[in-house]
Amino acid sequence: MTSLVRGFPDAEFQTRTRRAQALMAENDLAALLLTTEAELRYYTGFLTRFWESPTRPWFVVLPAVGDPIAVIPSIGAHLMRQTWITDVRCWQAPDYTDDGITLLADTLMEVAPQGTRIGIADQMESSLRMPLANFRQLESMLAPREIVGDCSVTRRLRLVKSDAELTKIKTATAIADRAFDRVPEIAQAGTALAQVFRDFQRLCLEEGADYVPYLAGGLGQDGYGDVISPATDTPLAAGDVLMLDTGLVWDGYFCDFDRNFSVGPPSAEVSKAHQQLITATRAAFDLARPGALMSDLFHAMNACVNPQATGSDAGRLGHGLGMQLTEWPSIIAADHTPLAAGMVLTLEPGIILPNGRIMVHEENIVVTDGTPVWLSTPQPAEIRVI
Amino acid sequence: MTSLVRGFPDAEFQTRTRRAQALMAENDLAALLLTTEAELRYYTGFLTRFWESPTRPWFVVLPAVGDPIAVIPSIGAHLMRQTWITDVRCWQAPDYTDDGITLLADTLMEVAPQGTRIGIADQMESSLRMPLANFRQLESMLAPREIVGDCSVTRRLRLVKSDAELTKIKTATAIADRAFDRVPEIAQAGTALAQVFRDFQRLCLEEGADYVPYLAGGLGQDGYGDVISPATDTPLAAGDVLMLDTGLVWDGYFCDFDRNFSVGPPSAEVSKAHQQLITATRAAFDLARPGALMSDLFHAMNACVNPQATGSDAGRLGHGLGMQLTEWPSIIAADHTPLAAGMVLTLEPGIILPNGRIMVHEENIVVTDGTPVWLSTPQPAEIRVI
Repeated sequence: MTSLVRGFPDAEFQTRTRRAQALMAENDLAALLLTTEAELRYYTGFLTRFWESPTRPWFVVLPAVGDPIAVIPSIGAHLMRQTWITDVRCWQAPDYTDDGITLLADTLMEVAPQGTRIGIADQMESSLRMPLANFRQLESMLAPREIVGDCSVTRRLRLVKSDAELTKIKTATAIADRAFDRVPEIAQAGTALAQVFRDFQRLCLEEGADYVPYLAGGLGQDGYGDVISPATDTPLAAGDVLMLDTGLVWDGYFCDFDRNFSVGPPSAEVSKAHQQLITATRAAFDLARPGALMSDLFHAMNACVNPQATGSDAGRLGHGLGMQLTEWPSIIAADHTPLAAGMVLTLEPGIILPNGRIMVHEENIVVTDGTPVWLSTPQPAEIRVI
Repeated sequence: MTSLVRGFPDAEFQTRTRRAQALMAENDLAALLLTTEAELRYYTGFLTRFWESPTRPWFVVLPAVGDPIAVIPSIGAHLMRQTWITDVRCWQAPDYTDDGITLLADTLMEVAPQGTRIGIADQMESSLRMPLANFRQLESMLAPREIVGDCSVTRRLRLVKSDAELTKIKTATAIADRAFDRVPEIAQAGTALAQVFRDFQRLCLEEGADYVPYLAGGLGQDGYGDVISPATDTPLAAGDVLMLDTGLVWDGYFCDFDRNFSVGPPSAEVSKAHQQLITATRAAFDLARPGALMSDLFHAMNACVNPQATGSDAGRLGHGLGMQLTEWPSIIAADHTPLAAGMVLTLEPGIILPNGRIMVHEENIVVTDGTPVWLSTPQPAEIRVI
């Protein structure tokens, strides 16, 4: 792994910033207020697992002109100063009387004249990573400026990945590919599912993952009940289908795909379901070129796995992928986003078996100007057997 | 690990719910609206790593009387129905026209009569895990009901851990203790820090962690620059201090402590700094009984490591711990929370070395009616050497 380059050249962040500022100008936004991990990292390169602690809020202000300004707890100053950001303003958090709000308000007032609009992410997949009471206080401190939706500026930019981002995602998918190939080492009839989960994460680390923020799975006779459950100590048994779905990270970028394994020879129903899942995945892959819509991918897969066109619990058949395990957009009938070169997608069809259980398959691809490219190694129609 | 009991008896969740309802009655709240992972899990037992995906919002409504109501994406229905919650209301998310907001508003209107107040977490360490635009829409749909701060109901309850919670935290700390004891297996002069990070997470898994959501560390000659940085490929060198700080999880509960290692014999400055950190930790431990205040612990530690009483970048010298890596309250001069039996704390003094670098030490303890109890194994004054 040591030969791979971590981080990005400053030019990458400068480009992101200028593109955001162009969209801000179009939408009459004097500044963006960023509060979440992915938003801050996208513009600054600030990469830390410290976000696991909910104690401290972190802010970046993106002005209409010029470079981003970090307004952060002093515990992060040393790390932020190693990024391309030069304007780093700190307070000693946690501060029970003023946890950075005055510093943030002052910064916003400095870059956004009275009467202007400050954008904040407010649409689907966003959240407000700061206390609501502080946000309300900030709003009144900033008046007559208005805090409005950010017109999804950052979400729109993140939709298309740069070559440097693609390299990181490819590294992550390759690591997971190797880990999945080693599952027979760790999972046999009799192994507790919780042990399989622990060992699979170990394999991901051995193969080069920085960390494994996501592992879910399913286990059951001829299918499983859901795809988000944590592991239990239930032992694998002949006739079970084991599904492992991982989002591991390399240098801040995720893969997100799964593999199904039959414990012993699969039943006819399981074999057929897996085959249909692969057929569906390939149908979407074949369509995934600029000009197609996300809804086209949905219908291509849904026709294979859900010919009665009933709704599914998962609610979608794939999604974007990159700095987060799941990103905009979703592969659903209502999403008419046109595909563009550089979009990274998961294709994730699910199927209901005759016994009422489910099976889900997932691959990662990147859209190009021509034929799409598999990032994960596409699976054959036959389910893996352990 | 298989002999340990996962989950909680239903009575634990019922007790939490009734206690919350008593506080709600005191504060004139007709319902609580819960949006974050820890809040939902605290009342329902809903444990999944699926929160890693930002796509879908999840809600629980806690009425003034009766059991919590889950208002969640259908992908979570199967898992939620395995908890003690019987009223599970679902929509197929993501839904671009109404992502659960009408269902949530209807549920809230059902339990909160017109003119009443609905509480939402809005103070420090909280965030709003739903799109802001949807929250604003919800507020107008609910009028003339008002969404107000939750008077920190959930935060207050979570401050004191039950015996069942303590068992889980003890399990997590014991796993990390064993992993730290094995660090000499994976770290020597010449090993890349990124490799140490990967291997240490592997050790945590081998020793029984379900997953390792947090690992940070420091590396440098006679101290390090910060405590939140990700690993680089820098190799360990003689004279370096290596610090590893992990928050690993067992059954949804965290430990959070660190260990320092000198690569080769430590310098006199490093030896002295480590000794002061241990002295500080023990000073706080000795005070940690009911009747003492969080600020007492701060001053006891600060006198050892920061006799000039200047501010520190970390901003605090410890914090609560449990379902999250860091929980309320903070060990700072301004926090006068009285200690109570069942509070789990990290004691985390930091010190600045003569060269300007820092060292941090951390242990986990639980307050009892008498002498506090170490959860992590308290370290001797001498730094570990590898």
